[in-house]
Amino acid sequence: MERRLSRQFDFIKEIDKEKFIGRQTYLSDGVRKENDAEHAWHIALMAILLSEYANEEIDVLKTVTMLLIHDLVEIDAGDTYAYDEEGNKTKDQREKKAADRIFGLLPKDQQEKLRGLWDEFEEWESPEARFAHAMDRIQPLMLNAAAEGKSWEEHGVRLEQVLARNKHTAKGSEKLWQYAYENFIALSAEKGMLKE
Amino acid sequence: MERRLSRQFDFIKEIDKEKFIGRQTYLSDGVRKENDAEHAWHIALMAILLSEYANEEIDVLKTVTMLLIHDLVEIDAGDTYAYDEEGNKTKDQREKKAADRIFGLLPKDQQEKLRGLWDEFEEWESPEARFAHAMDRIQPLMLNAAAEGKSWEEHGVRLEQVLARNKHTAKGSEKLWQYAYENFIALSAEKGMLKE
Repeated sequence: MERRLSRQFDFIKEIDKEKFIGRQTYLSDGVRKENDAEHAWHIALMAILLSEYANEEIDVLKTVTMLLIHDLVEIDAGDTYAYDEEGNKTKDQREKKAADRIFGLLPKDQQEKLRGLWDEFEEWESPEARFAHAMDRIQPLMLNAAAEGKSWEEHGVRLEQVLARNKHTAKGSEKLWQYAYENFIALSAEKGMLKE
Repeated sequence: MERRLSRQFDFIKEIDKEKFIGRQTYLSDGVRKENDAEHAWHIALMAILLSEYANEEIDVLKTVTMLLIHDLVEIDAGDTYAYDEEGNKTKDQREKKAADRIFGLLPKDQQEKLRGLWDEFEEWESPEARFAHAMDRIQPLMLNAAAEGKSWEEHGVRLEQVLARNKHTAKGSEKLWQYAYENFIALSAEKGMLKE
């Protein structure tokens, strides 16, 4: 049992590094950018509060666990910006290698469980994965709107790119996609924060 | 339903501010200090991985939810350092007022649910609350040991204070307290990172 516990704490210590992985989204104050751990915390809590709007019934603990771990691979692979076309070509390969190493720190049963959840998230094929992706997409829309489109402007992101990026968001929740579209995307476009 | 959803998103946007609340614990690199959102993410994931060591059976989703929200009151009340005697005298009052405002943003049913979980956490009387507190205590011990006691040194914290701070940690998990004591406290004391 001592060996098991020390592997678990090796993993717990290692994942502290997720706090150093920066994202491109500004926090609501528009000054500092978010990191992966903050983002994961935010969307895990969103999933708990918004699960009632999932298109299909979801297992909330499973969804939350998926969201808490979904970016751990970026400790090795780094954050690939949503609109970085070059980076996205090698993203899968870099992230799979990272998943092998990072989840591999855990005891075998937990390694398999977490790796399975991460694969499931990446495959977008279960109700939980679809809803988790909706959280992962809607949270930065909300923050970008709050920060008056600063991150979109910085990267010259256009409306059509945001819509393409969100083409599967409604598969997790029609209702939340509709709300996010109206309140975060359309309103930002109207205000000129998101160019056509 | 639109009104309900907009209250939920008011709350979701407001809690972004938890990312600005700094703690006294250094991250494992010993350079930057942790914030509340990062801390909550870390201990929520710890609870999922370590629930098998709880003294009593726990509802993991309930414990995780408790941990994700346990520091939201600090958005208004600020982080009160564990070893700040003056600050701890007014902590309860400041935090209760904050809980009224922040959870009050939510629709009534969710307001009551989250406020209830926060009260339960503060009362330390359920298996989930006891285990959640063990996570909340053990994580900074781990980080302090990883950062070679830098935060303890900065504040002149002594071994007896750390032990007093942790007098209820074993009530959540005897096994994890034993591991934390041996690996993070006793070892730090031996290396002179924590003075007697």
